[in-house]
Amino acid sequence: MSEILQQLDAVIAQRMSSADPSTSYVASLAHGGLDRILKKVAEECGETLIAAKNAGHTMNAEQRAALVGETADLWFHCLVMLARLELSSSDVVQELERRFNLSGIAEKASRTPR
Amino acid sequence: MSEILQQLDAVIAQRMSSADPSTSYVASLAHGGLDRILKKVAEECGETLIAAKNAGHTMNAEQRAALVGETADLWFHCLVMLARLELSSSDVVQELERRFNLSGIAEKASRTPR
Amino acid sequence: MSEILQQLDAVIAQRMSSADPSTSYVASLAHGGLDRILKKVAEECGETLIAAKNAGHTMNAEQRAALVGETADLWFHCLVMLARLELSSSDVVQELERRFNLSGIAEKASRTPR
Amino acid sequence: MSEILQQLDAVIAQRMSSADPSTSYVASLAHGGLDRILKKVAEECGETLIAAKNAGHTMNAEQRAALVGETADLWFHCLVMLARLELSSSDVVQELERRFNLSGIAEKASRTPR
Repeated sequence: MSEILQQLDAVIAQRMSSADPSTSYVASLAHGGLDRILKKVAEECGETLIAAKNAGHTMNAEQRAALVGETADLWFHCLVMLARLELSSSDVVQELERRFNLSGIAEKASRTPR
Repeated sequence: MSEILQQLDAVIAQRMSSADPSTSYVASLAHGGLDRILKKVAEECGETLIAAKNAGHTMNAEQRAALVGETADLWFHCLVMLARLELSSSDVVQELERRFNLSGIAEKASRTPR
Repeated sequence: MSEILQQLDAVIAQRMSSADPSTSYVASLAHGGLDRILKKVAEECGETLIAAKNAGHTMNAEQRAALVGETADLWFHCLVMLARLELSSSDVVQELERRFNLSGIAEKASRTPR
Repeated sequence: MSEILQQLDAVIAQRMSSADPSTSYVASLAHGGLDRILKKVAEECGETLIAAKNAGHTMNAEQRAALVGETADLWFHCLVMLARLELSSSDVVQELERRFNLSGIAEKASRTPR
């Protein structure tokens, strides 16, 4: 799955700078400015919470797929927000790596008897 | 950066199932149940919006680092939420790949004269 | 200003039970179910945060009016949510009164030399 | 229930300007600045959504009381946010009155046969 987020960063950056807002959703978000993008982040977060409550209650496949879809929407709009502020998914993922000292932790986890 | 999210999934899954809630933050979240995790997702989303507004206003390095940190917090708590519901970052990233048809789009983007 | 929220409760309850979803916004929200209403609450909360950051930065009249408008949207959709669950603004305001022991506190505040 | 929100505005304004942050929650929020207040608004909105989903599922008294409590928290922190920006509940309630033309609408509603 690895380079998907980076590919998506590249697609977003390209459309943000050169696509037509009337045909590209990313370009229309960029055209609307940071506030428009942040409203979508908040909206998608709310939809993620609702989908998680639904999935947690039923645990059926449809509700779980809905949660995956809402989380994908949330992360996608975070990528657009980052691009708008000249950042990218790499900055976030590197921060997670640094914070969790992942090489070390993951290695240790792999050696831990379960 | 590629396998970081998957490594983080693995760390979260292990701690969620076997770590002590008094010493592991992930285990304490899992112990608190889905609602406790979702409250953190909402809280981190709010902090991301605030950090983005601050970064968008000043565009200085400190504010941009704060935004990266808050987005990392948001994504991390999404990973914990997914793990709680027996899903993972792979489900979300694959959904993004499917939705944006990334192989095709990324290839086309790479051929587009800029 | 006093009975405005109660009047609004009454209008919402009436439209929710008898208005046509194709012409009444409240009826259309009710028709969409609790999740549709909660998505609006989350969306309006995000817009309130953004408006507050804008107003806090400029403190000009237009931005402050925008914040008032977004907060009104947020409270309105909370009223719709409460109505959907057979609650009303009175329940919330009474909870605030009880929690802050307002008669007592307000009286004491009025006597405190400033 | 009428003047409760206005009383609460007065209590908040007084504590914000003169109370000790080490003993007054409102003073500690004010001391923390707008971002600290907005983080609480976002957090309480998340808790409201979660409580509403729980109440919508069970419709039992305990869950409904929890929703009332979370909505009260959300509105309270909105009042603190408004006070911080030199606004008050009156501005929001008047906006709702204006927007819904409540005198007229409420009168009409009272005449509508049900």
